[in-house]
Amino acid sequence: MINAKIHVRFKSGVLDPQGTAIKGALKHLGFEEVEDVRVGKLIEIKLDAASKKDAEGQIKAMCEKLLANPVIEDYSFELSL
Amino acid sequence: MINAKIHVRFKSGVLDPQGTAIKGALKHLGFEEVEDVRVGKLIEIKLDAASKKDAEGQIKAMCEKLLANPVIEDYSFELSL
Repeated sequence: MINAKIHVRFKSGVLDPQGTAIKGALKHLGFEEVEDVRVGKLIEIKLDAASKKDAEGQIKAMCEKLLANPVIEDYSFELSL
Repeated sequence: MINAKIHVRFKSGVLDPQGTAIKGALKHLGFEEVEDVRVGKLIEIKLDAASKKDAEGQIKAMCEKLLANPVIEDYSFELSL
C-alpha cells in the first residue's frame, strides 16, 4: 500500500478569497504579525500500486484529470510506503 | 519571516463526503487501485514572528481559535524560515 499526500494550491497571482478572509479574521483575533494566508487542499490517497514508480504515474494522472484545475491550480505530492 | 504549513484533517471516524466523492470519481476514471481518499485543508501562513518558538505558540493558538474545529478536526504544522 502506498500513501500519497497531495497539495493543491492556487497559482501565485490567483485571488484567494478564503485566504484573505482568514487573514482578516486572524488580525481581528489579535494575531497582528500575520503577513499572508493562502488556503489549498490536502488530499491523502491510499493506493494499492505495484511500485512507487507506478504510483507516481497514477497520482500525476489523477491530479491532471481530476484533482487540480490546471488553469488556476498547481499540485505537488509526496509518496510514502 | 516564518512560514507555517498547516494541515487540518477530519478526525478518523468522521465521515468525509468529499473524499468519498473523489474516490468514486477516480474509480469511474479507471483508477481501480484507489483504496481510500481523505480530503483536508492546507493553510500556509507567513508570520513576522520574533522566533520559531514564538511562531509555534501563535500557530497553535490560531489553530485552536479559528483554523481547526476541535470537535471533528485534527491539525498539524511545520515551520520553516
